[in-house]
Amino acid sequence: MNLFRNFKSVTRTCYGRGTFAKLGEILEPHRVPHEGPAPDVERGTFLVFVVDHYFEDKTEFIRRIPAGPDDELVFIDSREEPTTELIDGLRDDILKRRGLPAGIVGIGGGSTMDVAKAGALMFTNEGSSVQYQGLNLIKRPGIYHCGVPTISGTGAEVSMTAVLTGPVKKLGLKCDWTIFDQIVLDPDLIATVPTDQWFYTGMDTYIHSVEAITGTKKNTFAEAYSEKSLEMCREVFLRRERSDPKSDELLMVASYMGGLSLTYSEVGVCHALSYGLGKVLHIHHCIANCIAFDKLEDVYGEYVHEFKTMVKERGVHLPQGLAKEWSEETIDAMAEVAYNLPHMWDHAFGPDWEKVLDRERIKGWYRRM
Amino acid sequence: MNLFRNFKSVTRTCYGRGTFAKLGEILEPHRVPHEGPAPDVERGTFLVFVVDHYFEDKTEFIRRIPAGPDDELVFIDSREEPTTELIDGLRDDILKRRGLPAGIVGIGGGSTMDVAKAGALMFTNEGSSVQYQGLNLIKRPGIYHCGVPTISGTGAEVSMTAVLTGPVKKLGLKCDWTIFDQIVLDPDLIATVPTDQWFYTGMDTYIHSVEAITGTKKNTFAEAYSEKSLEMCREVFLRRERSDPKSDELLMVASYMGGLSLTYSEVGVCHALSYGLGKVLHIHHCIANCIAFDKLEDVYGEYVHEFKTMVKERGVHLPQGLAKEWSEETIDAMAEVAYNLPHMWDHAFGPDWEKVLDRERIKGWYRRM
Repeated sequence: MNLFRNFKSVTRTCYGRGTFAKLGEILEPHRVPHEGPAPDVERGTFLVFVVDHYFEDKTEFIRRIPAGPDDELVFIDSREEPTTELIDGLRDDILKRRGLPAGIVGIGGGSTMDVAKAGALMFTNEGSSVQYQGLNLIKRPGIYHCGVPTISGTGAEVSMTAVLTGPVKKLGLKCDWTIFDQIVLDPDLIATVPTDQWFYTGMDTYIHSVEAITGTKKNTFAEAYSEKSLEMCREVFLRRERSDPKSDELLMVASYMGGLSLTYSEVGVCHALSYGLGKVLHIHHCIANCIAFDKLEDVYGEYVHEFKTMVKERGVHLPQGLAKEWSEETIDAMAEVAYNLPHMWDHAFGPDWEKVLDRERIKGWYRRM
Repeated sequence: MNLFRNFKSVTRTCYGRGTFAKLGEILEPHRVPHEGPAPDVERGTFLVFVVDHYFEDKTEFIRRIPAGPDDELVFIDSREEPTTELIDGLRDDILKRRGLPAGIVGIGGGSTMDVAKAGALMFTNEGSSVQYQGLNLIKRPGIYHCGVPTISGTGAEVSMTAVLTGPVKKLGLKCDWTIFDQIVLDPDLIATVPTDQWFYTGMDTYIHSVEAITGTKKNTFAEAYSEKSLEMCREVFLRRERSDPKSDELLMVASYMGGLSLTYSEVGVCHALSYGLGKVLHIHHCIANCIAFDKLEDVYGEYVHEFKTMVKERGVHLPQGLAKEWSEETIDAMAEVAYNLPHMWDHAFGPDWEKVLDRERIKGWYRRM
C-alpha cells in the first residue's frame, strides 16, 4: 500500500563547514515584523535565540551567535525533553515583555530544534500547546524559524513534527507549518559532542532508517534515503576515526537523509518501545532507542548485530539489566504506551499486526532490557 | 574550496505510483488570482498547462490532465529546445487574450519543465526573457508553477534554472524563484518513453552525477546525492528489465537526486562540450551529452567504460563518426562556446585549469566524436 503524501520541504538549506559564520547574514533579511494577524500585540523586529544549555558556559561559542542586544537569548535545559509547559511559558513571557518576535532560531540538539519549531507556531496560535498536539491541529502559520543543529541524528532539522511532552500525551505538533524556513548545517559544530551523546544521537538516524526500510509503508523514495543514510552511518561508526572531519560531514548528511527517509515511511517497533521508556521513565529519546534496539534481534536481525558491532567498536556504554529494577506496573504502563501507537505496528507488521503482536510480546521485549 | 550556498528547495513534492491522479486536487487551492503586482492586467483564476507535443495524439493521457474548460492547454514542440522567443510569445498571447493566469503547470520532459519555469517568471517580469538570461536578473517572483515530469534524468524538476536559447546566448533564467512550487513525480508516467529517449535522458543524471562527484567544488552533501544517483542508475541500466515497474521508480528518484547533487557542485567537461553541440548544431541536450561523454575516457576513465557497457547492454544507438561531416569552422565555433564556460572548467580541473586546457584540447575531443 503506497502512502500518498505531498510533503513540504525546508525552504532553505545551507550546508558546509564554516557556514555557522554566515548565520547573521542569513537571518538579517528576516528581522522584519511578522506579517500574519497579531491582534493586540506589538510586532517586533527582534529574534529569539533558543540555545541548548550545554553551551551556557561555552563563552567562545556564545560570542559567535549573531544575537544583538535587542534579541532574546534563552537557554533550554535539554536534560528533560521539551514540555508543553516550557513552550507556553516561553511564549507568554516574551509576548508580555517584548511583543511578537520576527523569528526564532534554535541552536542545539533535537530538543532545541523542537522548541524552536513549536515556539514558532505557538507565537501565532492562541491558548496552550496541549490543544495542538496531533496532526494538522495548528490554525495559523508560525513566525520565521531557523534550525542550527549542534548534534546530528534525530532528523529534527527536516521533520514536520515538534515532539512535546504534555500532561497526558507525548505527541508532536505536526503540520506543514512546523517545518523550518531555514536550516544551517555546519559539520564543525558537531565535532566536539561528547562520545556517548554523539553515538546515541547518531544511532537515532541509523535506527529510524532501519525501521523505515523494513516496514510495509515505504516506497522507493524512502528506500533511497534510508539506504544512503545507513551507508553513511557505517562509514562514520565502523570505518572512520571520530577525529576525522569527514566523519562529521557524513553524519550531518546521514541525519538529514535519515530524516527524509521518513517522508514516505514510518518508524517501527523500536520507536514504539522507546516512546514507552520516554513517557513512563523519562529516558531520553536517543538512548531509549539504543536500549530498545539492542533487544530487537527477532525483528531487525542483522541490523541489530551491526548495531552491537558499532557499540563495541566505539566503546560506548549501553545500560543493561534495567528491567530488574522495573515493577510489573512500570512494564504494564510502558507496554500500554507502546501498544497505542498502531501506525507504527501497522508499518512494522502490516495491517494484520494484531495477529502477531499483543501486549505480552511487548512486555517480553521490555523484560529483556 | 567549499561553495557557500543557501539553496531553496521545491516547496512541495509528491512522489509515488498513481499520484498523477491527484494532480487536480493538488492544484485546486492554487486557482486563485496571483497576489503580486500586476498593473493594468486582469488577474485570472485559470491555469496554463504546457504539455509536451508528444502527447498531442495520446487522447487517453490528455483526458487525464485536470484542465477545465476555463484553463489553457498549450502543446510545446520539444524537438527544438525552448527559446526566449517561444516563452515571450506564449506569455504575450495569454496576457492579451486572458490576462494573468493563477499558475502554470508543465507536463513533459526537461524542455517542458523549463518552459513552465521560465513562463512562470515571465508572466510577472516585463520585457523579453533575453534580458533575464543569467544569475539573479529576474526582478519579481513568478506565478505558481508545478512540474510533472514524464521522462526522467535532466533533474529540471529540482533545479534553479530554466535553460533558454536566445539570439545570442544559450543560458538559463537562474534564481530562487525559478524553483518549482510543486512537483508531482509519478513513475507510471515514464513507463512508456521510447527506449532511446529513455536512455539518453536517464544518462543525463548519470553524467552530471559523475561530473558533480569528480570535480573540485563538490562537498559531502553533493557526494551523497551523486553516489546514490549513480547507484540507482546502475540498477536501472545494468541490472533490471526495462519492463520492471521498480526500474521506473528508481530512475525517477535517481533523476531527483542527481539534480540535487548539483546543489553543491557543478557540471564539468561533458556538459561544456554538450553546450557547444547544442548551440552550434542544435543537437538535443541529452543525446549531445551521450555523444560527448563517450569520448571522454581521458577525463572520466572508468565511468566512461561503465557508460559504454550501459549503451551496449540496452542496445541503444549512439551516433558515431559525426566529426567527419564537421568543417573546421563548426569545430572552432563549438570549441569557442565550450571554452567560454570557465565555471565548468574550474570545477573539472581546479583554478589552474588554463594550464591543462586550451582550445586545441577541446577541438581534439570534438574531432573524436
